[in-house]
Order: sequence, then structure tokens, then C-alpha cells
Amino acid sequence: MAFDGSARSLWAWGTVDRFPDEAARRRLAGMARMLTGGAEAALLPLPRDDDARVPPARVSPPPALAALASTDPHDRALHAHGRAYPDLVRGFRGDFAAAPDLVLRPASADAVAACLDWCAGARVACVPYGGGTSVVGGVEVAADRRGDFAGVACLDLERLDGLREVDLVSLAVRAGAGTRGPALERALAEHGLTLRHYPQSFEHSTLGGWIATRAGGHFATGPTHIDDFVEAITAVTPRGVVATRRLPASGAGPAPERLWIGSEGALGVITEAWMRVQKKPRFRAAASVKFRKTLDGATAARALAQSGLRPANCRLLDPAECLLHQVALDGTAVLLVGFESVDHDQGPALARALELCRDHGGVVASGPTVSDDGDGAAALGGGAGEAATWKKAFVDAPYLQSALVSIGVMADTFETSCTWDRFETFHAAVTAAAQDALKRTVGGGLVSCRFTHVYPDGPAPYYTFIGPARVGDELAVWREVKAAVSEARHVNGGTITHHPAVGRTHRPWYDRERPALFGDVLRAAKRELDPAGVLNPGVLVD
Amino acid sequence: MAFDGSARSLWAWGTVDRFPDEAARRRLAGMARMLTGGAEAALLPLPRDDDARVPPARVSPPPALAALASTDPHDRALHAHGRAYPDLVRGFRGDFAAAPDLVLRPASADAVAACLDWCAGARVACVPYGGGTSVVGGVEVAADRRGDFAGVACLDLERLDGLREVDLVSLAVRAGAGTRGPALERALAEHGLTLRHYPQSFEHSTLGGWIATRAGGHFATGPTHIDDFVEAITAVTPRGVVATRRLPASGAGPAPERLWIGSEGALGVITEAWMRVQKKPRFRAAASVKFRKTLDGATAARALAQSGLRPANCRLLDPAECLLHQVALDGTAVLLVGFESVDHDQGPALARALELCRDHGGVVASGPTVSDDGDGAAALGGGAGEAATWKKAFVDAPYLQSALVSIGVMADTFETSCTWDRFETFHAAVTAAAQDALKRTVGGGLVSCRFTHVYPDGPAPYYTFIGPARVGDELAVWREVKAAVSEARHVNGGTITHHPAVGRTHRPWYDRERPALFGDVLRAAKRELDPAGVLNPGVLVD
Repeated sequence: MAFDGSARSLWAWGTVDRFPDEAARRRLAGMARMLTGGAEAALLPLPRDDDARVPPARVSPPPALAALASTDPHDRALHAHGRAYPDLVRGFRGDFAAAPDLVLRPASADAVAACLDWCAGARVACVPYGGGTSVVGGVEVAADRRGDFAGVACLDLERLDGLREVDLVSLAVRAGAGTRGPALERALAEHGLTLRHYPQSFEHSTLGGWIATRAGGHFATGPTHIDDFVEAITAVTPRGVVATRRLPASGAGPAPERLWIGSEGALGVITEAWMRVQKKPRFRAAASVKFRKTLDGATAARALAQSGLRPANCRLLDPAECLLHQVALDGTAVLLVGFESVDHDQGPALARALELCRDHGGVVASGPTVSDDGDGAAALGGGAGEAATWKKAFVDAPYLQSALVSIGVMADTFETSCTWDRFETFHAAVTAAAQDALKRTVGGGLVSCRFTHVYPDGPAPYYTFIGPARVGDELAVWREVKAAVSEARHVNGGTITHHPAVGRTHRPWYDRERPALFGDVLRAAKRELDPAGVLNPGVLVD
Repeated sequence: MAFDGSARSLWAWGTVDRFPDEAARRRLAGMARMLTGGAEAALLPLPRDDDARVPPARVSPPPALAALASTDPHDRALHAHGRAYPDLVRGFRGDFAAAPDLVLRPASADAVAACLDWCAGARVACVPYGGGTSVVGGVEVAADRRGDFAGVACLDLERLDGLREVDLVSLAVRAGAGTRGPALERALAEHGLTLRHYPQSFEHSTLGGWIATRAGGHFATGPTHIDDFVEAITAVTPRGVVATRRLPASGAGPAPERLWIGSEGALGVITEAWMRVQKKPRFRAAASVKFRKTLDGATAARALAQSGLRPANCRLLDPAECLLHQVALDGTAVLLVGFESVDHDQGPALARALELCRDHGGVVASGPTVSDDGDGAAALGGGAGEAATWKKAFVDAPYLQSALVSIGVMADTFETSCTWDRFETFHAAVTAAAQDALKRTVGGGLVSCRFTHVYPDGPAPYYTFIGPARVGDELAVWREVKAAVSEARHVNGGTITHHPAVGRTHRPWYDRERPALFGDVLRAAKRELDPAGVLNPGVLVD
């Protein structure tokens, strides 16, 4: 299966050619030992595609859909999982028991409707699939639910791709839901435009996936989530098509598009959307600031978030995070601050931001770098010093996680948001829960934290944990750690997910976070839109 | 009934003491004749409260609710209508046939629940009521629906008021839904805070009403609607309480609070909310810019909206609007531009905005005025020249509308939003529809337009129409004009309401604007939350 010129890995993140080579894996093994203090990590033999174990299909595509359908075991295996840690582990082991029975690739909204018709009639579970980058079990029907259905169809939307209409006056475009990040940005660049939405999965994920999961982009302040970029959506449900009106804003009843933004494939299949885009930013300013104490850095980040300056980057890395990303090795916390504008010099905004940082004990470590070069290359953030180092690490991190699996190291992340008044106790409790769980399960490990986004009323902290894997028992260990940190997030007032979605992994805590009556409304909505209950079963509601 | 120290008018906008006196009404009559070219408007005798015709109550409060209930005819008449043009006309005539059978004033969420229990059991329609400022028939059960119920209870939330909790770290507060604008701002000011949300109804409307109707504030760019200020809500439904979690942001499924924001009392009674607040702005900069052609002003407003400068004011007045508000009398269009910040000088932002205006043919007419006085008095906008004139006119306009009714002049407004690419044809079509309807019904009149808000992808145009009333037949004329402009808004790609809500007036066009399947979902949500169908019947869904 072609993937931007390179084959997609059956088990690891992204494409095969980007998987770290043996020398890189050795370096990683040394670093992992240093970080986690466990036994020397060993390079495990990499799995071969031929060893993938894919169960026989339970259901065959009907003749009317034969042209859209694939039953090839390799193709099915490629669509078996997302790319969460347990997905990597199972893929590494060659375990593709979760593979769908067939993959459907509709090329039009009508074809999507035909697929849904068949699924509803044949009682086949239907899993909408964008880039397959879910880290929350979003594209895999749970083993204990598969028996409720005659089979499972993966609805891969890759053919619903491309930029379809450009409105240069309103700065809005219509694009297919299956359009991947790089293809969308390339097509927009021809018009001098950008969506300027870069989730970490950007290289592989799709517009429809971003909308269905309320994806969060790279930039620290609004718009952060895809929600605010959405001007209108079209979704196909088993009961028909939903198309909201292109409007810059409205006050007409509860916002209809908001029901499908975050619906995770359970309430319909998003087929295309009108998105608000921007002209390419031209003016940039960036710096990095060191803090002796992480909490001082947090207070500075809060001051920035409440200043109205709206930094594009306001990314606080704690000392462990600095170490992981080789941003600083001296035990300080680093705040990466950056500004971007299509219209005007960002030097004054950065200067004011740095004043606020100094007020809270910050010392400028790099920059300020101010530019108006009009160069779109730096669009993922500021271009100065640590910020540039950071940027590369950001997109490479998921490749590293896969490589760590291949050397017997467990590495994963979890994220949340909470209000500023709770942050200090929240952070202490969540960090302790992660460290305790690592100690209990694998003797200890490293827990780091950064802010991915900051809001006037609170940060979005993002945690990484790394420990030696208990090879053969990785999944049980991971589940125990994940449950501990999820519980800590929940009881300390955070959300179970700030941006990678609920999926199946976060369901138990989502069910407690969500008001019970809103759960009833979602169930009612699902009965209304998906009476046969075939759309991504197990997601959002039962 | 006491109302901020003065009695509320039974029929007109706001309080009795603010109603224009006879001399002012004479001046208005002269001006109206000049504007509409009709016959000299005559001062009609003002109605007396004693002449209000209130039907006998159909239902009595149960003993358990007697302490919360009022059956006083004057009180019932006060709660009969909102303050739309037809409400003013009926009130002026002494027609209070729409009065609820009783008014309930619960002082706690538990008491709200008790009221809903009784209503559901006794099949009494229950209309949640904030400030009673609806201009869309939001607080009045239609005559042809009243027979479906044993009676109608108005659920006045005025006792659910006050600031209940202040989080100075996260800049968020918890306040009762019945808190009126001035009381909320006074309480916030004691902490140096402001919600900074000023709908035109600000003096009389309530926090809960703003949330239930997705109210739009005075400022031109984000946040414009109350939606983005809401951190968490608590609502009481006939099936129980819904409380969303305080979070700065989340990606956990479709946003639960968004179902109740804009639910207009049909899906529950909002009892309190956590709101994002700000420190009082200190830095301001403002100017006004003239344009020979209104469309050039629109293009300049678009440039500002797409610049990332985020002006607090970006209010384009067409020549008729300038005349109405005495901002300019020379046939030019005027763009009022203003900036505000709690943190930093706004001079540079204004300077850049004025450059953009000049690029599109604008001539600075007043200002720039730049200040950092920390004076909260100018919080409703910039303080310079035309902007100050504008500000006073903004809050006084609804009083004028009432006074015009009392001199036989029909004056009303309608508003919308559309994408920039459609604006020119949209504006021409809507203006023509309004003018044609005025000509057909009353021989002609004046139609003016301003932008209340601007977004990167489109403006929110706000239209005023003024014509001689056909006394005795005002309602039929108004309905014909309203239908014509609503149809023009709809078929030309606008929304039926950018901010005053759908209510009952906008329902026919809302039903066409909203995706049909979203209507089905709302109906399902209502069945789930309000099984007896007693909450504000006729609003949103049937």
C-alpha cells in the first residue's frame, strides 16, 4: 500500500523507511538505560510481515461493493489497530487477531451511504478509518464485542481526499475527509494558504479524523482544537446525509456541527468539511526561557496565557522533558515561546512575553529571534535554538516510541487539562500515581511533563512515562499504569483527554466525566442516527 | 416589582424612568418623518397599567410551591411577553392574553427541580425566564399551543442570582443564572474582574439567558458569543441535574455543554455556570474611519478580521446607520475601530489597523486616541468621538424603539451572518427585500445596515428598518416585513440568527437551516430530558 511514496509499517508508526536503523536503536537502548535505570535494553528481532497472524475473514463483501472492498490479509492487518502502545506491542508480536474482515474504500459520499446500508442490513460493524493513527483504540472493535456482529468492516476514507473548493475571499476551503495533513497543506500552499493545524500525527492523519476526534494542533493558544477551524461539515449516517450551513458564526440553537465534532465515528461518517484557513504566516518571533523551578515556569506560562498576547508556542518543558528532548541538560525547566503573524511584526509581542517571563524568574536562554522572511518552512513553530530542536523531536517522537518497543522499553504518553487553581496539586498527584505504578510494575521509570497548550483558565499538561518493559507481559503492565494515571487525572479534576480522543481506552473514565444525562442524550442520538448500532461500536456509548 | 431601583415597564423596554418623555417623543416624531417620509407621526396616549387586560388564570400553584408562586395579574402581565416589536405593540394596546397562569420564583436548584416535577405531573408548560428581553418570542407559549397544556408557568430565575465563587488564579467565577448584567459586573469589579460580555440587553438580561440563547456581546471579534466564556454549566432537567466539569478545554467526545448553550429553555433550566472572566482592560486605542463607499468599508473590515489584530470594535455603519445614530451626516460609511488590553499598549495595533483601512480608501475621521488610564468606564468600547456617540446609542436603542411604537412608527432590527464571498449579493438581496416589503405594506421606509461582529470568514450584518406603522394593523405589517427579510436571509446563505436566538419567531427558517437529522437528534434529546414535553414548548423542536 503506497503511502506518500513509502510503505506503511504493518506494526510501527508511520512508514517503514522512517523506522530507526540498528545503530539508532543501539543509541536508544543506551539512553533508555540511563533514563529508566533498568537492565540494559536488548535489541529484539524486528517482526517480518510474513509472520503476521491474521484470522480468516468471517464475512465477504456483497457483489455491489466488491469494487470497493479488499479482503487481502495484509491490507486487513494494516487496518487492525491504531498506533497506541498496546497496538505496537501486539503488532510487534505479529498478533493481528483484531483485523477487520474486510476493508471498504468508498470514493464518494454515495458510496459511503451504500457501505453503511450494507453494514446495517448485514449487521456488520463499520469502523470509519482515516489515517489509523488512533492512540486510544479508536479504530478497533473490542474482542468481546466482535461476536455481536456478523463481521467487522473497516471503512477507509482515503479516496475521499483532495482540496475541492477554495474561497480566497472568506479564507475557507472545502476538502475531503480522507485528505492527509501533508497533502492538504501542499494543496493549500499553492494558494498561499495553510490550515495551520499540526497534530503530532500530522504526517499520517486526515482531516476527517481530526474532526471526528477533536484533534489538538501544535500551537499553544487558540485555535487549539480542530473545532474552531470547522466552518461546516458533511456527514453520512445510516439514516441519511447531514450537511451544516457555511457560516462564520451563528446563534441558531445548539451548534449542530458540534455533535459530530468529537463523535469518533459513532454518529456518522464525516465525508468532507469546509475549513477556515489562513494566509501563510510571514512574521515570526521566538525565544526560550529557563526557569530554576518548573512551577515558576508554569506561573509564567499562566501570565502569558492571561495576557492576551496569544503566543503560537508557549510550551513549558520540565527538566525530565528537557533531558528527553535534549533541549537542556542542566536540570532547569524551559519555556519555548513563539509568535506568528501573517500581518505584522511579532517582535513587540515577544518582548512583552519575555518581560512577563522575567517577572516570574525566567532567564532568556536563546533568542529573541525575530523574522519576517515569509518562509513557510518554520510553520511548525519558532525557528530559534531550542524551539527548532523541539520541533524535530515533536514529529519524530512516535517513531521513537515504536523503536523503544523493539528494544523492550515501555514508553507512552497521556495528556489532560485542568484549571490553573488545581494545577499544582493535580500535577503532584498525577506524577506520583505514574511513578508509583511504574515502581510497582517494573521497578521504576521516568515521568516527564510538558504543557502542550495553555488557556487563560488552565494548562494542558502532557506526560511521558518510560520504563523497562516486562517482555511477554507488556500489556498487563501498561494497563495497570494507564489505569493508575487515568484515575489520578479523573479524581483530581482533569479531563480524560484534551486531544487524542476517548476511543475505547478512555471509556471507563469518560463515562464518569461526562454528565450521565448527556450520556443518555448521546445514546438517544445514536439510536436516531444509527438505529442498527453498527457504527464504531463501543465508542462513546454502548 | 423593584428593578435596580426603578419599576420595570409593563409594556416598554426596561424601566419606566428611562422611557423618553413627551418632549423627546416629539423630537423623535419629527425625526421619524424625516427618515421615513411618511405622514407626521402622532403622539399616541401612553397605556396605563390599570388598563392591562390579563385573562383569568387556568391553573393554581400547588401548596408545596405556594411560597414561590405569584398569581398577581400585574406580575403575570409583566411576564407575558419578551420585548420584540409585536410584544411592544400588544403591550401598548393592553393586550396581555399571553400572560402565564402563574409565576414561579425558585431560589435553589432543588426548588427548580420541584417546579419541573409539578409542571410535568400537572401538564403545565414551563417557560424559563431570565430578564424577559427576548426579541424572538422566546418566553411566550404560542396561543395555538396553550390548549395543549393545563396551564403555563413562568419560571422566573431572578432568585438564582449572585456571584458564588471566585477563582482569581484561573480567572473564572461561578454565578447564578438569574444574575443580571449590571449586578454581575458590579460584583466582578470588586475583584478587579469583568466578564466583558455586553449584549444590547445587558442592563436587563441575565447570565442564564445569555447562555440559553447563545447571546452575542458588544465586541467585534472573539469571543463574540457567550459560548466561549462558558467553562461549565449546571442545568436542571425534568430527569435530573446536569453538571459539566470545569475544564479549560477538552477533547472528550462531543462537547456536552454545547447541547445546553443555545437550548433556549427547551432541554433544561440552566441554574448556574462557571464563566471565564478577565482582569479589567487598562489599555485602549480607538479611531473612526470614513469611507465614501460602504463596500470599501466592508473590504477594510474584512482585512482587519483576517489580520489577526483582533479589534474589540470593528463596527461598520452604512450611511443610513450613521444618520440614525448621528455619527456622520455626510453620506459616508464609518468604521469604528477600537482595541482593548489588560496587558499592553494598543497603539501599535490601532496604527496597523488604520494602515489597512487607508489601503482600502478609508480616511481617519477621529482619533487615534490611545490611553492606558485603567478606567473601566470605557469598557463598552473605545472612548473617542464617534465611538462614544455610538456607545450611548447602543444601549439606548431599545428605549427608542418603544418610544417609536408610542408615536405610530414601526422600527425593528434583524441580524445574521454570512461568508465574505456572499456578502455583496447577500446584502443587496436582503436590503431589497426589506425595502420592497416596506413599500408594499406602508409605502416605504428606511433600511440601514451595520456590522456588529466580524470574523475571518464573514461579517455579522445587522439591519434596522423604520417605517410608518399602520396603526391597528401593526402586527400583520410587521409579520409581512419580517417574513420577507427572513426568507431573503435564508435563501441567500445567511443564518436566521447570529445572536438573539431562534425563539418562536425564527422557527420556520431555523427548521430549514438546521440539518433535518440534527432536528431528529434534538427531538430525541428532548424526549430523553423532558419526557412530558413541558419545557418551553414550541422552541427548537415540536
